[in-house]
Amino acid sequence: MASTLKTILFFSIFFLSRVSSKLHPLDSLTPSEFLRVRAIVNQFYPTFNHKLSFQYVGLEEPDKHVVKSWLSEPSSQPPPRQAFVILRLNRQTRELIVDLSRRSVVSDKLYRGFGYPILVDEDEEAAVDLVLKHGPFLSSIRRRGLNISEVSCFSETIGWYGQVKTNRQLQISEYVDRAVIPLPKAEGTDYRASTITPPSGPRFNAAPPKPPGQTGFKLNRNVISWGNWKFHLAFDARVGPVISLASIYDAEKKSYRQVMYRSYISDLFVPYQDPTEGWYRTTIFDSGEYGLANFAVPLEPLNDCPSGAVFVDVKPVQVQDAMCIFERHTGDVMWRHSDVERKIRETRPDISIVVRMVSTVANYDYILDWEFKPTGSIKFLIGLTGVLQVKAVPNTNTDQIKEEVYGTLVAGNTIGISHDHFLTYHLDLDVDGDANSFMKTRLITKRIKDKNIPRKSYWNVEHEIAKTESDAKILIGSNPPELLVINPNKETKLGNNVGYRLVPGSAARPLLTIDNFPQIRAAFTNNNVWVTPYNKLEKWASGRFVDRSRGDDTLAVWTEKNRRIENKDIVMWYTVGFHHVTCQEDFPVMPTLSVGFVLKPTNFFEYSPVLKTVPPQHLSWPK
Amino acid sequence: MASTLKTILFFSIFFLSRVSSKLHPLDSLTPSEFLRVRAIVNQFYPTFNHKLSFQYVGLEEPDKHVVKSWLSEPSSQPPPRQAFVILRLNRQTRELIVDLSRRSVVSDKLYRGFGYPILVDEDEEAAVDLVLKHGPFLSSIRRRGLNISEVSCFSETIGWYGQVKTNRQLQISEYVDRAVIPLPKAEGTDYRASTITPPSGPRFNAAPPKPPGQTGFKLNRNVISWGNWKFHLAFDARVGPVISLASIYDAEKKSYRQVMYRSYISDLFVPYQDPTEGWYRTTIFDSGEYGLANFAVPLEPLNDCPSGAVFVDVKPVQVQDAMCIFERHTGDVMWRHSDVERKIRETRPDISIVVRMVSTVANYDYILDWEFKPTGSIKFLIGLTGVLQVKAVPNTNTDQIKEEVYGTLVAGNTIGISHDHFLTYHLDLDVDGDANSFMKTRLITKRIKDKNIPRKSYWNVEHEIAKTESDAKILIGSNPPELLVINPNKETKLGNNVGYRLVPGSAARPLLTIDNFPQIRAAFTNNNVWVTPYNKLEKWASGRFVDRSRGDDTLAVWTEKNRRIENKDIVMWYTVGFHHVTCQEDFPVMPTLSVGFVLKPTNFFEYSPVLKTVPPQHLSWPK
Repeated sequence: MASTLKTILFFSIFFLSRVSSKLHPLDSLTPSEFLRVRAIVNQFYPTFNHKLSFQYVGLEEPDKHVVKSWLSEPSSQPPPRQAFVILRLNRQTRELIVDLSRRSVVSDKLYRGFGYPILVDEDEEAAVDLVLKHGPFLSSIRRRGLNISEVSCFSETIGWYGQVKTNRQLQISEYVDRAVIPLPKAEGTDYRASTITPPSGPRFNAAPPKPPGQTGFKLNRNVISWGNWKFHLAFDARVGPVISLASIYDAEKKSYRQVMYRSYISDLFVPYQDPTEGWYRTTIFDSGEYGLANFAVPLEPLNDCPSGAVFVDVKPVQVQDAMCIFERHTGDVMWRHSDVERKIRETRPDISIVVRMVSTVANYDYILDWEFKPTGSIKFLIGLTGVLQVKAVPNTNTDQIKEEVYGTLVAGNTIGISHDHFLTYHLDLDVDGDANSFMKTRLITKRIKDKNIPRKSYWNVEHEIAKTESDAKILIGSNPPELLVINPNKETKLGNNVGYRLVPGSAARPLLTIDNFPQIRAAFTNNNVWVTPYNKLEKWASGRFVDRSRGDDTLAVWTEKNRRIENKDIVMWYTVGFHHVTCQEDFPVMPTLSVGFVLKPTNFFEYSPVLKTVPPQHLSWPK
Repeated sequence: MASTLKTILFFSIFFLSRVSSKLHPLDSLTPSEFLRVRAIVNQFYPTFNHKLSFQYVGLEEPDKHVVKSWLSEPSSQPPPRQAFVILRLNRQTRELIVDLSRRSVVSDKLYRGFGYPILVDEDEEAAVDLVLKHGPFLSSIRRRGLNISEVSCFSETIGWYGQVKTNRQLQISEYVDRAVIPLPKAEGTDYRASTITPPSGPRFNAAPPKPPGQTGFKLNRNVISWGNWKFHLAFDARVGPVISLASIYDAEKKSYRQVMYRSYISDLFVPYQDPTEGWYRTTIFDSGEYGLANFAVPLEPLNDCPSGAVFVDVKPVQVQDAMCIFERHTGDVMWRHSDVERKIRETRPDISIVVRMVSTVANYDYILDWEFKPTGSIKFLIGLTGVLQVKAVPNTNTDQIKEEVYGTLVAGNTIGISHDHFLTYHLDLDVDGDANSFMKTRLITKRIKDKNIPRKSYWNVEHEIAKTESDAKILIGSNPPELLVINPNKETKLGNNVGYRLVPGSAARPLLTIDNFPQIRAAFTNNNVWVTPYNKLEKWASGRFVDRSRGDDTLAVWTEKNRRIENKDIVMWYTVGFHHVTCQEDFPVMPTLSVGFVLKPTNFFEYSPVLKTVPPQHLSWPK
């Protein structure tokens, strides 16, 4: 139990623990609340007669209207603090809601569907332990002239391939010693600066330091205020950082205006493309099967996050400095104009605030950024670095490869297997209020009919409001429409509906056939965009129980109901994907590959919200 | 003549003038060389009996093999300095090649085709002057209760709409006073910090300063050396910055390896989408009709370019600080990996070097960046800011608009007209040598045939080498192939062909019908990618004479020859485009909208070229 608790606390929240009454309703559970959850559940299911493990413990989010009502009067009593708990109890899965103030389990359901909860460290450790004690495995290692202390094992989820009956198990249900393949050379793969061998280099200047104490933002009850932005930051075991209640100050209206109620990475699907035994199952759901935050790592000041960054621990134990918050100065220009005739030149340098977490999912490091700009844009950036998943092969040159391989020879005896990354963001926009619509703006080529005009064509826009979920399924291809979430009840003074536009990033789409089992489970990536009516239970695009799932509880299934989404509280789901054909430069550690997308205010403000930005006071290097 | 000369010198090059023998063969013409060109041409065509104006003067680029041969032995005699001159002489267009060492005109051709050369300041001034002295225009202004001193006029190119006979003229061949429309309010449109009225707005921290004198790069004969990169910087009247001879140091091979022989923005096509009289002609070729560098503006230290930037004048006169070169620290991560089990964490912060020019084309400001990264990637970034081209309308609210308009009401009585921007880059890659091929890597979905594997599909890559120009015309849509320039004669030790991959940016395609006259002239934007065999004369995708051109000398026409491009010295042309549906936030000055693309080494290096990057020595804020 001690060890299980350790894992749960690892998911806990940051900042010092405090009395509940001072908590924001969307704050993650505090260390003391985690302890209380454990105590309440242990009293409910005493361990002396139950085999019990905690697979997930997180905030049971209050209903949105309750949070908003509290926000309108923050001195009022906040909603009761509750936890959502997923247990394995006597080989069954249970979902509990624990009320922390009433100190009781207020709901307890046995889950009877397919699929199993997130795997935690203990599951992995138990599995690997089995292998390391397995006689035939030990003799295989000896036969290769290796010492067991040199061998590292890890397990992978097993997926679902049409079986009628499935168990909760990892990829170690049987042991086969299939082939002896030359071990790739270790030489040249050490990436530590302390072990660099010649030729070393290059060496670069460091970024200049910020003046001491200059962070640029304020932090109050997990609410970050910076420039014209304000948002709440929390942390969840399954999805990592959660940004809530993002609102922007409108100087004309002299008030903060709502933009985004809640946003996080709902799942991260990574199918590898090697169809052979031992590899075909490698189609991982990092969030749903493992929990993205399970892989949070401590960030290194000045290298992972620049000067001036504030680091945030995932308290109370394991991951110090798991997130950072910093002002970003890119050297870009926020806006400028030169009027040569009137001898005017006005330029404002770009600046933004970034919340960053790095999730090192065994080999890959995902750098996950939420960036807020004074212009009202929110940028979601994913940096992909770390180590490729590689396969040992007998070949040291492509000339020797006569059969189909499933990736690139990136080093001697080493294939970097081709794969995809699909990140599905949950984007609960509330543009100037709850009731929003989803608008597709198409650019249509038109013929000119006026005989006096010798030009033949032009384009103009046509707007379409999505009535139901079917209207809002978008696979981004060539000439995609512009996609907006608008508030049909709010107009600018000029009569334009206020809105936010999705500016998509890389629009890679799934290449697996839709009848493929992994793709059935990942059907939420079949479109780049989906829009659903707000439903507190529809948090995770891949469903609640993803390990060995059968795709019966995904975003794709929910939207089959084809619910009405016009002028309603709606949630946009956006999948940014990329195909990765590996190359030698990706080895042994891959230079960061970045993809991202932007939410951009569109007729939300009466005019540019940064027009009146005061030019910054530049500092000189102190003498 | 003095005034014409002024314009030409405006296009001249930067850095101090020097004796020719010290010049790099690709250096722009020096101020003294410009004077010599003028003297030689004036002797050739004495002004006492000729009406002469200089429309373009630039370096007549030596043949590539000549440059490369000089590079292999830089102490040898450099190729002769020559200038390419376009004149209007007695109402005709002439193309001259002037040899500066022989002080003579070595070639003089009368151009008999359609189209006219770049318009220079004098053309514009003469046109506007006509208007400001035109009686009917002056009475129109008086009738509106305005004073002529409050009125600003500018001319626009007239294009071609199927006329059999065309003259060299601007859009002022007749005068019509079509409509009196309420003048949009000036209130709220002043963007100068000195005039900000409340509510003023957010104020932000400045970026931290670099230590004095720390630029990070070296400059020698217009060759910039920084980290593992080396490249030559020049400047041309028509296309702006020209980056040549970019090569990267390979620590394994202990030598610099060629990547890119020459790159610049070949043209910039901006069609507006209002088909009515007075607007339908607004389909501008900024480079071909005006010269992109004609609009270079002085950059503001610390705001246009960050601390540590080195500014470069376009000498000898008008545009000081027209370009800047600076190290960029973005706060991103170059690469990282945490190995939790082995307690290893290695992180290298990102850094790059940027060459920037801003071209303020009347209303719009284009921020043009060439960014070189230690990873071997080259990023081409375009930031679009400045002022929209707007049209006055009687309406102050969208409710009043009953007829079709061609943009968004962005302020009272002000429509921001819909339009596109297409930037066509000339990318003469020489990947590890001249002889290269263009490879399309397609990701193909395949069915799994092995009955023992329950998974149904996967994807794998298929490579195709383009044989001729037709094979290399790519319109980027959904699931585009990966596009590479490879060297078929060079392999890594592992047997992969060395290459560079184009990572496309926004893939907006033209929406005008292909029979439309502006699109016929801009047919080089019909594909995103084209590949041609190197031909020194094929510099400008829109042709040599673009004003009133008929599309008979564009990249689209050249490639109809369908020349062989396999294992040859080839040039890639890439068009990055975006459609701009305006919004209120774009007014009165538009927050920067960025688009870009990347050239990325792909199996060019044996392993990650930044693996052995030494961690930077961080500085503290001095006490």
